[in-house]
Formats: sequence, C-alpha cells, structure tokens
Amino acid sequence: MNEGILLIVSAPSGAGKTSLMKALLARDPALTLSVSCTTRAARPGEQDGVHYHFVAPAEFQAALRAGDFLEHARVFDNWYGTRAADVRTRLAEGHDVILEIDWQGARQVRECFPTSVGIFILPPSIAELERRLRGRGTDSDAVIARRMAQARSEMTHADEYKYLVVNDRFDGALDALAAIVVAERHLMVRQRSRVAFAFAF
Amino acid sequence: MNEGILLIVSAPSGAGKTSLMKALLARDPALTLSVSCTTRAARPGEQDGVHYHFVAPAEFQAALRAGDFLEHARVFDNWYGTRAADVRTRLAEGHDVILEIDWQGARQVRECFPTSVGIFILPPSIAELERRLRGRGTDSDAVIARRMAQARSEMTHADEYKYLVVNDRFDGALDALAAIVVAERHLMVRQRSRVAFAFAF
Repeated sequence: MNEGILLIVSAPSGAGKTSLMKALLARDPALTLSVSCTTRAARPGEQDGVHYHFVAPAEFQAALRAGDFLEHARVFDNWYGTRAADVRTRLAEGHDVILEIDWQGARQVRECFPTSVGIFILPPSIAELERRLRGRGTDSDAVIARRMAQARSEMTHADEYKYLVVNDRFDGALDALAAIVVAERHLMVRQRSRVAFAFAF
Repeated sequence: MNEGILLIVSAPSGAGKTSLMKALLARDPALTLSVSCTTRAARPGEQDGVHYHFVAPAEFQAALRAGDFLEHARVFDNWYGTRAADVRTRLAEGHDVILEIDWQGARQVRECFPTSVGIFILPPSIAELERRLRGRGTDSDAVIARRMAQARSEMTHADEYKYLVVNDRFDGALDALAAIVVAERHLMVRQRSRVAFAFAF
C-alpha cells in the first residue's frame, strides 16, 4: 500500500473553502479531513472529535511545549493546531489527508512534509469576497473590515502553493479540486511502488 | 490568454494509448492532437493532415536537414517527426497540445519545452500486453516478438515521465488522464497571468 498524500488547503475567509472541502470529501471516499485542536468554544452543531478537538487553553499549551503540533496558529484570540501523530497515522494507513490551515501553518507543514501538496482557493475577485462576507449578515462593519484585511494578507501568500483554484463557479472549482487529487495520485514518484512488481524498471 | 500546455504521451504498443487519446480528445474540447509527419504509407481510413501528414522520404529528409522537426524517430523502416512550428502555433493560440511519441522523441521535446508534461501509459502486466498484441490476430509470431521486445524497451523509460497511468480499466485510465490535464491547468505557475489582474500579489 502506498502512503497517503498530504494536501494543504488554504484560502481567505469567504472563498468557499469549507463548503468545497465538504463536497470534495463526499465525492472521494479515500480522502479524510484532519481534525485540528482548538481552544475556541464549539459553535452550535459542532461536535468534539469531528469538527475539532476542543481543548482547554492549558492543555493546548502543554501539547505545544511538548512539540506535539505539526503546525499551530493563533487566530484572533484562539489557538489552533494539528497533532503530528494524528496526521502520520492517517497517511501510513494510506489515507489522503486534507489539512485546512492558513499560509503560516502551511509553511510549518511543508518543512516536515516536503511531499505535501499545497492548494490555494481564491474568490473570483476582491469585490465578490466582500459581498460574500457581508452576505452572512451577522457581523459588524468592524469585523468585516478586519476579515477583509486578513483575507488580503492571506492572498499575498497564494504563490507559495502548488495549485490555484478560483472559486467562481462552485461545481467547476469542485471538479478542479477532485482532478488535482486524482492527478497527484498518478504522479510517477507516488506510483513506483505500485508498478515495480509488474515491470523491472 | 494563457499559452497552452504541451502534453507528451508515450506507451508501449498494446497499452491502449490511441483509444485513450481518442476518448480524451472527445471529452475535452480544449485539447488538440499534434499531427506528425511520416514517410509510411497511409493505412485504410487514415486521412492526410488528420491522422498524419504523409510525406515522401525525400521531403522528410529535407525538413530534417532544415531543422524543422521538434522530434523525429525511425520506427522499423519508417520515419516520424513533429514540426516545431506546428506545435508552437497551437500552443500560442492557447490550445493544449498532445504529442503521441516514444521515449526518444520525448527526450528531444523536453529539451525544447522544459514545461512540457510527460504521461506514460502502462498495460496492467506484461502477460496482458502480450495477450492484447496477439488479440489483433493479424501479425506473425516474429512480428509479435519484435513488438514485445520493443514494448519492454519502451517501458524501461517510464520513470522519465511525470505521470504514470495504468490502463487496467479503460474508464479509470481515461478519468485519470482527464484529471491530469485539469490539474496541470490549475498549477500556480500556469495561472499567475489569469489572476494577476484581480489580486496584487
């Protein structure tokens, strides 16, 4: 069995990443989403161990000091992190693992996993991004301005990723993501062990 | 408009490359097949300018001496070659161009087009390859033995290609090829010009 592929997916808030990942996971049963640890409170409908591992700040800091995290980040007043052991186990089992993290986390992960594959998702334009953020209708102008600034900052790191998917049409973006996963599985470097038994090259 | 992608597709005879390329071209209208020049005689049903440019040996040698060919090869008693000007024109028009050539031609093309993308197609096994070659029922044992030897030789160069597709199920191999094309179009290096207008990174 081949080791799984580690996919790093980043996007500014409002690009549609979460909906796309949900649809991608439903389409491709070999994919699995890495479950992060976070110190933030669970939102309605979020389940511990499914959407996040919800941990107390003290527990998070202890794991951080112990070097358990592959990547970690502070977003606003909350901490997020991915336990390296969780990811390594899934990959060794042959699962392809998706990490939904920001550009800073992506840099940390690339150091440990140079064969990881970065995908950046963009909204079709800045104007559309702002429309989507306002469309939620739940946030103040100040919060939206902060999110827009953060989105612009995130987007300046898009060129650190291997692939770029513009989410102008949801179905088109989903097809592109699914194609990237299939293509990556067919890279020669990932297939040698699969065909070595059949051909002596 | 972005420049098109040059795809180099190689396979041993009997791997199913020609049928796969035909189906791939039917599925993806942005793809176009490069039409090679050859000195061999047209087979029944083959049209000049569609399947090949059928040229006289003297004409082929003159073009070869003039440096017109991106790649060329002698296969058995016939010459095959791809005119560089044809490929550059198609790519500049934004078409993604497929070159169906052997490993020697692929090496020549990679020198001129370092951003070209190599795909190698394998049959599921040597035994299945021989069964397919015999299945045609039109060739003598000596011809089949020669083809098998050539196929083995071609396959020893599979690892010079970026992608590997095993044609065990036709539909699965076709899906993989289509996914590779879509994924390549979404590589960051090919998309910068597309999104530069929207974002200042």
